[in-house]
Amino acid sequence: MAMGYSELPNEMIRAVNGVDYAYRDTGGDGPGVVPLILFQHFRGNLDNWDPALIDALAVGRRVVTFDNAGIGGSTGTTPDTVEQMARDALAFIAAMEFSQADLLGFSIGSFVAQQIALMRPALVRRLILASSAPQGGAGMHGWAPEVIAAVGAPQPNPEGYLGVFFTQSATSRQAGQDALRRMFARTQDRDKATTWATRVAQYDAVCTWGNPQHALLQRVSAIDMPVFIANGDSDPMILPHYSHLLAGLIPHARIKIYPDSAHGFLFQHHAEFAADVEAFLTEDQTAALIGCGSR
Amino acid sequence: MAMGYSELPNEMIRAVNGVDYAYRDTGGDGPGVVPLILFQHFRGNLDNWDPALIDALAVGRRVVTFDNAGIGGSTGTTPDTVEQMARDALAFIAAMEFSQADLLGFSIGSFVAQQIALMRPALVRRLILASSAPQGGAGMHGWAPEVIAAVGAPQPNPEGYLGVFFTQSATSRQAGQDALRRMFARTQDRDKATTWATRVAQYDAVCTWGNPQHALLQRVSAIDMPVFIANGDSDPMILPHYSHLLAGLIPHARIKIYPDSAHGFLFQHHAEFAADVEAFLTEDQTAALIGCGSR
Repeated sequence: MAMGYSELPNEMIRAVNGVDYAYRDTGGDGPGVVPLILFQHFRGNLDNWDPALIDALAVGRRVVTFDNAGIGGSTGTTPDTVEQMARDALAFIAAMEFSQADLLGFSIGSFVAQQIALMRPALVRRLILASSAPQGGAGMHGWAPEVIAAVGAPQPNPEGYLGVFFTQSATSRQAGQDALRRMFARTQDRDKATTWATRVAQYDAVCTWGNPQHALLQRVSAIDMPVFIANGDSDPMILPHYSHLLAGLIPHARIKIYPDSAHGFLFQHHAEFAADVEAFLTEDQTAALIGCGSR
Repeated sequence: MAMGYSELPNEMIRAVNGVDYAYRDTGGDGPGVVPLILFQHFRGNLDNWDPALIDALAVGRRVVTFDNAGIGGSTGTTPDTVEQMARDALAFIAAMEFSQADLLGFSIGSFVAQQIALMRPALVRRLILASSAPQGGAGMHGWAPEVIAAVGAPQPNPEGYLGVFFTQSATSRQAGQDALRRMFARTQDRDKATTWATRVAQYDAVCTWGNPQHALLQRVSAIDMPVFIANGDSDPMILPHYSHLLAGLIPHARIKIYPDSAHGFLFQHHAEFAADVEAFLTEDQTAALIGCGSR
């Protein structure tokens, strides 16, 4: 790989919905390579992916990050439903001419990835849900007061970010400082900051997704591609509880809970998580799912 | 502890339902000690508990094993529903004059323990569900053909037992041989064998429990005492999938999946499992449940 994530240019592509999408594109792109598309967290833009994670993922495959409609460098409006976010993402994917992809959704991005898997299953080869939860789960009608206070303020600040994405342990705090340093190493051509309108619309979508409705939990039982569910053991934003729920509802899911980590477990444990993702995307699923799936 | 499980006498107690229940009673019984009551697996009687596990549990507390109505040395008839099994167990518990107890249910015994927690929550201080599944879960309408063939035959045999309760690894196979040796070390006053009528009625109950009905999954969300969910990573009888489902549905549950083990994980890993149970039963739940429960 010639260029690290921090040096990648911001690219733009126009979709049929009239939105110009900002994205970055890295890693292998030989014939037959299925791209891995990443779906970002609440209020995040292209610069909020830890370059250490993207670079580790891109060793083995093509990796695409993008701003969904209304976010960062993309034009358009951030919608207030996950359903519309999924349609907007599908427009980007169509513009990129990807007929099949692996999806890695993180936090609200994992809701969008779930929705795409349910709406257009033929597109999705394998699905990775990081810090995720099923629509309708009880007890997730918005985030805990201290969480939304920390990351939902008009001006996001590093201390609020660290308190939600990393634990209070010295190791995790240091990992958080390191991740922030990597994200801010890029000084040229940074992505546009996300707006207050994006924050409001995304949180509306999060609260709506969390309207408790037991019947809706059954939706994800229709997801029949292989799924890898991952979470930090101390995530205060989306509790591991919901990862277990997803793993129990989705027929062919594996789950891994990473130690001493919070919402940003995939940045803290970037090497281990990237290796787990690589193994999941490449290995024989028949063997891999023994003991994890239903029958 | 003066006497190991293998040397304990079989005791009998009559309940108001007219059933004489066979049981064994070991460990501490000082004032204020909450007994731990164990609920046995499919076709199991008092002799099918691994003495190494019972003795490890009994170091720190009173432990009671019993034959439910119609099983082994108890009189009465084995019912064909988990609901009636729960009523029969409650009759035994009332006869023992336990006003509160910790319950450890294993396999079909975990279904009965769940039912008691739902029917009479005030009785249950803490709940341990080993190789368990919620009523109504999809894909568990009876066990896999090779499983019921192995453990459902008219004459149970050690090879069928080993194939379901232990994995094919050399370590697990050896653990299985060791567990069987411990169970059969007792030669005097063994419990009566369970009957074909018990086998038929219990499997009717298992299949009924497994009638798929998504709405029924919501039942266990009412279980509000602390719950510890445990499973072998390669259990072919009740897949770990269902342990994750339970952990995602029960508000305050922790989960642990034991490596290289099957349905008999709690016998194979008896020392580790007993230590985990002891920690669960004694520790401060507020601290222990961080990262595991819902909020």
